[in-house]
Amino acid sequence: MVVNPKGRCQCKDDGVKFIPPKRIEKIEVYPPSSSCQHMEIIVILKESGGQKCLNPESRFAKNLIKNAQKE
Amino acid sequence: MVVNPKGRCQCKDDGVKFIPPKRIEKIEVYPPSSSCQHMEIIVILKESGGQKCLNPESRFAKNLIKNAQKE
Repeated sequence: MVVNPKGRCQCKDDGVKFIPPKRIEKIEVYPPSSSCQHMEIIVILKESGGQKCLNPESRFAKNLIKNAQKE
Repeated sequence: MVVNPKGRCQCKDDGVKFIPPKRIEKIEVYPPSSSCQHMEIIVILKESGGQKCLNPESRFAKNLIKNAQKE
């Protein structure tokens, strides 16, 4: 669940561990900052345009970004 | 320079090779898609809110995302 009150983390929980790649429109990576001490990854979905928090620690998240860089 | 006509890549050139991390608000990673065959990284800057294309092949880009995942 993504909430975005200024000055707090955007993801209320750890986020999902997997999102089917073909559903991914865009990946937003928020480095740690004064408003949120840990990195957050928010995935924008293709059809619905909805947003999902992706658990940065999940193997999927790590592979997703590593593979995206190999293209 | 970021342009965003639907159905084409958003970055007109390879993008910059370095952006001071403390200027980074958010990193947007666009996986390859039907509208653009290669991955694109667009960095949203803190103060100006401006956008810069970051060269995905640059060492900085690769380290940026790798380090962001270690936090």
